[in-house]
Amino acid sequence: MKVRVVTPIVTEGITEAADFQPSARPDVLVSHTQIETGPASIESEFDEAYAIPDTIIKIVQAEREGVDAVVIDCMGDPAMNAGREATSMLVLGPAQTGMHLAALLAQSFSIVTVLDAVVPLLENLAKEYGLESKLRSVRSVDIPVLELEDHERLMRALADESVKAIEEDGAHAILFGCTGMRGCAEGLRVALARRGYPGIPVIDPVIAAFKIAEALVDLELTPSKRTYPTPREKEIVGYSIDVARIPG
Amino acid sequence: MKVRVVTPIVTEGITEAADFQPSARPDVLVSHTQIETGPASIESEFDEAYAIPDTIIKIVQAEREGVDAVVIDCMGDPAMNAGREATSMLVLGPAQTGMHLAALLAQSFSIVTVLDAVVPLLENLAKEYGLESKLRSVRSVDIPVLELEDHERLMRALADESVKAIEEDGAHAILFGCTGMRGCAEGLRVALARRGYPGIPVIDPVIAAFKIAEALVDLELTPSKRTYPTPREKEIVGYSIDVARIPG
Amino acid sequence: MKVRVVTPIVTEGITEAADFQPSARPDVLVSHTQIETGPASIESEFDEAYAIPDTIIKIVQAEREGVDAVVIDCMGDPAMNAGREATSMLVLGPAQTGMHLAALLAQSFSIVTVLDAVVPLLENLAKEYGLESKLRSVRSVDIPVLELEDHERLMRALADESVKAIEEDGAHAILFGCTGMRGCAEGLRVALARRGYPGIPVIDPVIAAFKIAEALVDLELTPSKRTYPTPREKEIVGYSIDVARIPG
Amino acid sequence: MKVRVVTPIVTEGITEAADFQPSARPDVLVSHTQIETGPASIESEFDEAYAIPDTIIKIVQAEREGVDAVVIDCMGDPAMNAGREATSMLVLGPAQTGMHLAALLAQSFSIVTVLDAVVPLLENLAKEYGLESKLRSVRSVDIPVLELEDHERLMRALADESVKAIEEDGAHAILFGCTGMRGCAEGLRVALARRGYPGIPVIDPVIAAFKIAEALVDLELTPSKRTYPTPREKEIVGYSIDVARIPG
Amino acid sequence: MKVRVVTPIVTEGITEAADFQPSARPDVLVSHTQIETGPASIESEFDEAYAIPDTIIKIVQAEREGVDAVVIDCMGDPAMNAGREATSMLVLGPAQTGMHLAALLAQSFSIVTVLDAVVPLLENLAKEYGLESKLRSVRSVDIPVLELEDHERLMRALADESVKAIEEDGAHAILFGCTGMRGCAEGLRVALARRGYPGIPVIDPVIAAFKIAEALVDLELTPSKRTYPTPREKEIVGYSIDVARIPG
Amino acid sequence: MKVRVVTPIVTEGITEAADFQPSARPDVLVSHTQIETGPASIESEFDEAYAIPDTIIKIVQAEREGVDAVVIDCMGDPAMNAGREATSMLVLGPAQTGMHLAALLAQSFSIVTVLDAVVPLLENLAKEYGLESKLRSVRSVDIPVLELEDHERLMRALADESVKAIEEDGAHAILFGCTGMRGCAEGLRVALARRGYPGIPVIDPVIAAFKIAEALVDLELTPSKRTYPTPREKEIVGYSIDVARIPG
Repeated sequence: MKVRVVTPIVTEGITEAADFQPSARPDVLVSHTQIETGPASIESEFDEAYAIPDTIIKIVQAEREGVDAVVIDCMGDPAMNAGREATSMLVLGPAQTGMHLAALLAQSFSIVTVLDAVVPLLENLAKEYGLESKLRSVRSVDIPVLELEDHERLMRALADESVKAIEEDGAHAILFGCTGMRGCAEGLRVALARRGYPGIPVIDPVIAAFKIAEALVDLELTPSKRTYPTPREKEIVGYSIDVARIPG
Repeated sequence: MKVRVVTPIVTEGITEAADFQPSARPDVLVSHTQIETGPASIESEFDEAYAIPDTIIKIVQAEREGVDAVVIDCMGDPAMNAGREATSMLVLGPAQTGMHLAALLAQSFSIVTVLDAVVPLLENLAKEYGLESKLRSVRSVDIPVLELEDHERLMRALADESVKAIEEDGAHAILFGCTGMRGCAEGLRVALARRGYPGIPVIDPVIAAFKIAEALVDLELTPSKRTYPTPREKEIVGYSIDVARIPG
Repeated sequence: MKVRVVTPIVTEGITEAADFQPSARPDVLVSHTQIETGPASIESEFDEAYAIPDTIIKIVQAEREGVDAVVIDCMGDPAMNAGREATSMLVLGPAQTGMHLAALLAQSFSIVTVLDAVVPLLENLAKEYGLESKLRSVRSVDIPVLELEDHERLMRALADESVKAIEEDGAHAILFGCTGMRGCAEGLRVALARRGYPGIPVIDPVIAAFKIAEALVDLELTPSKRTYPTPREKEIVGYSIDVARIPG
Repeated sequence: MKVRVVTPIVTEGITEAADFQPSARPDVLVSHTQIETGPASIESEFDEAYAIPDTIIKIVQAEREGVDAVVIDCMGDPAMNAGREATSMLVLGPAQTGMHLAALLAQSFSIVTVLDAVVPLLENLAKEYGLESKLRSVRSVDIPVLELEDHERLMRALADESVKAIEEDGAHAILFGCTGMRGCAEGLRVALARRGYPGIPVIDPVIAAFKIAEALVDLELTPSKRTYPTPREKEIVGYSIDVARIPG
Repeated sequence: MKVRVVTPIVTEGITEAADFQPSARPDVLVSHTQIETGPASIESEFDEAYAIPDTIIKIVQAEREGVDAVVIDCMGDPAMNAGREATSMLVLGPAQTGMHLAALLAQSFSIVTVLDAVVPLLENLAKEYGLESKLRSVRSVDIPVLELEDHERLMRALADESVKAIEEDGAHAILFGCTGMRGCAEGLRVALARRGYPGIPVIDPVIAAFKIAEALVDLELTPSKRTYPTPREKEIVGYSIDVARIPG
Repeated sequence: MKVRVVTPIVTEGITEAADFQPSARPDVLVSHTQIETGPASIESEFDEAYAIPDTIIKIVQAEREGVDAVVIDCMGDPAMNAGREATSMLVLGPAQTGMHLAALLAQSFSIVTVLDAVVPLLENLAKEYGLESKLRSVRSVDIPVLELEDHERLMRALADESVKAIEEDGAHAILFGCTGMRGCAEGLRVALARRGYPGIPVIDPVIAAFKIAEALVDLELTPSKRTYPTPREKEIVGYSIDVARIPG
């Protein structure tokens, strides 16, 4: 089985295939690619708009290369719907997958994300995915994506906001609101237990989406073509994507 | 007052400023522009993804040129949220404006659009805009955007689907689901009255958005900067938009 | 175009046509009338019940006098539904129009009204209009309608409650919950910016409804007769309204 | 215990105290009154508007006369909220009570009412009462209120529409949408059983509200004064109700 | 009329028929029974699971003995749905009945229960019953069921949590979240009035369900057999209930 | 990794470990157990009530035996919540998991189940799980659980009801409503494609839950202890389960 992680920002060195290898099953080959045109990071619908065109191209290429599933490496789920239209393959976004897992494991959940600027975007995704009644709040650590590498600052802020989500908003699980927080789940779970909140699931959405991808490929389940029909053939000026070559 | 209509497809000759002039107030100067890179028409999230980047640029340019409001000429409201982030100006989409007007005038409404392929997209917008409880159905005439010029076929299909929306789905108003249906509202209203359904509001969304834009500019109301904060300055590779020049 | 403002209280001197003239387009003739039987102010469903019968009469008279649209001057939207039934003309209420505009411009909004007593009434209108998911809270300045002329006290209370709505309830826009607050929008917007909340739309609902009326008359849009059918002819004892004369 | 039925129309001879006596407990004294000013029947929000002022007066008088509970004899629940504000007594409407009982006994219910004209009004009450998720449909027998005495026509239409509600809309219980259908519940239940639908609760809302009133008086439960605060003292021109005399 | 209260825990001495006699009408014969196998108290879904099998048996026995209605003496409404399937009799649960009454009398309500552990269970019941939009919060006094006899501690905690529910959560009525709080409604109402919150309905759910049972038996209303069809005949190993004997 | 399938009916020979082995990863050891006391099949809340007590015991035993995850083999998700309270292990139900996967892959879904009798139960689970807005309908093939082995009849009925779900209800994916339909997903997918509906995901919920269990064990995610707290120690009369031994 081949799973491709697509990072929809141009900044290199944040994500690579090796980050997923420890989580992958022995029979799963992980590959990674990232976009060449688009933003340095995604912190608004504006940024996301410039990430999507090349992300779609990377998803279409993945299918042509025989990949079984693509996992998008951003909590805005950029290009997920369009990528599902343009392929017949499994395409998963961490926001959609992570919200469903949070709702599967807890009565309610909160998202802790990077900046207040993306709160409406995440709230709207919850509505689109039908999970707004389980989402208690979207809180932010107030740290831009490209400064998340200050691990100590991040962990302290994640714990502070998670405790508020639990105490003030009634969250029973925590979902990271940025895939740049990858790898912090176990640390946050321990931190929450120390602060008096044991047994709170903490979901690292891009890793979770990767593992769910493995399971769904085994199940031979792909997105509904009634929801995501193949785009009609037409001219797209200025982009190197050829709709005519997408199998209908 | 200056209002700019931005058409987010590359196909020329479908929309021009003159189409809005008859509806415009004497004190309003209408201008029109359309994107140079992107799809020939928008009939999927895939198409829309390639329309958005240049549409944002056109919106930002409009603000720099002193325009008071932009109306986006597509029922997917492409670039509306990002355009609101990137400017301090009024930016209206026909889907959002049209749905609110339909709900203002009737207990319930249905959308009649071009193809089944865009039904999920329009349903998701209704959820994002908070109006899903007023939307009874999204029906389609099964005519691609670029074939809408067959006026007779279009009018017959619009009336057929609108009657089904009223009788089977309980709609009390009809909203066009494609701005390419511009100019058909009065005809459909008359056709519905003839078939026994007088007094049904029929909303031509891009014209309606244009008129609401005039009113909101007078009211000096612009989108909330708390919902649509100015994007943080960053590199966007491959696009001729300069985030640094967007005033924060 | 003729637009009539109908004030549904007997207290004179609070609203007059001149209050709307500065907002009106040059081609719009504003007239004003108010009820002769009914309450001194509306601060409960009880008060509203006694305002509605004569307000309907004033709306019906407006249509007979060739008026194009009526705007009701009270946030309970008294007589709006009945007035739409009894005429074929555009009838707008500030609550319905204001809530739709707030939702059009922001992810969420709060209403700041006069007294806690009207909170349930406004919450119920939001449900009827289908916008409860966008309404974060209804807060009150705790000032009766007829004491709103103490401008300084009002502005301070408006700013205080609006800040709480933003900070504690998550509002991204503010809608006045009483038409007696007319004229305070610009002041509140400035006050909020000074307190650190720039770019928050503040909606003055009766002025907004007036401007939307202008736009909708141009669009020849009137309320759905399927939602608001003409009342059947019958005897109404004790009121000088003649159902038989309402055109069916 | 004293329970007063208030009929909010001026047409006499439709309802009297004797209609409730067979359902009343031995310890309950039933009285009946009806309005003197207002419509001959209620079939629109317009009609209802002219029924409410005198209905409130009749409710206030009932409290002054030592009545324990008022039941309003109309499915629009006219004057219920205002009557609760103006008294400290139990005031029940058949729509609110009937919808709650239907939801108590079945997964879902439909309302079968007189005319299509009142469908939006009843749908809006379901939203206000929080029961819209249990309401599958509002159907009508297309018979005006004052023609309901044609019992055979009514029973046939009630059965026809109820079967459609069950089969097409998924209703598990039927609620009458007009108090003029009083007395038809047992007949409809039998008719439905004969048509192959045994065990469907059929709720006669005004009788049901009467019996629930008896129970709630025993329980000493009255409407929340936080939802229905006593109206502030003020002038009401043209009506013989004295707010000053309502105990605050 | 015969009404049977069924206590679904094995601990004796907490509830008996005499507790309901003062509330019962003269023509109503109250009887009481409790389960012989099951938990000492119900404070989780785990506990409830072991209470349900014998509670169903007690409900079925009640019908065979000619009882007209059963009231279940626990706020989890254990065995209510199954008991309605297995009989043709009225079966009421205090949670469902109490939530409907709270919504009947107030714009919103909160539940004050024993332990945080049962909050999700009560929230889920509100969703199942369709009343989640009226439920503002579920708060707990943090006292286990079998320690509720410390009346002073209970009353203080009830008042404290109820004030928070009113002030912080916006509740307009209070519903007890455990039938072990039976008898505290009047005391809490007085305590709330003393603390500045007069006119707040306080609902003692098991007593309320008992009184509503009386009313519904008079109305000859029983649960919908379309929602609660009679179980198909089959073997149940290990339980002394004979499905074959349940009349279909 | 050890995954245990627990069948909550006493009828043997329907499910065994070998049914899951082909779907299991090489590193996963599948075991199977079924209850010894309880019903022959589950087709009502009544049946389910008698299945739950021993199912909980089987779940608790699984944890004591070092199993990593339990999958419950019934679409009522019997004992799922209680089993999560009583253990610290992953416990998955096919209804909850299957509904989340259907919503992950499609805009909307319908459930096709065995009998109309379980429709309310499944609708209520959708509400509890927060997915009611994605569920278009629950349809039934009208075949009792123990007659599902007539494969041809089942497949024909599944295809017929699925087509109605797609055409009349708007479903974009199909979820089996009974785990006794295990193994029919591929056949139904092919049948739907032949009838003109290619690309419709068909979810076999118990197999899907099994695969998701594998993924979640790898992710070390278990249900929230804030939603499912460990039951307090207490006496359970008549059942061989010892709450005192459940680790708190």
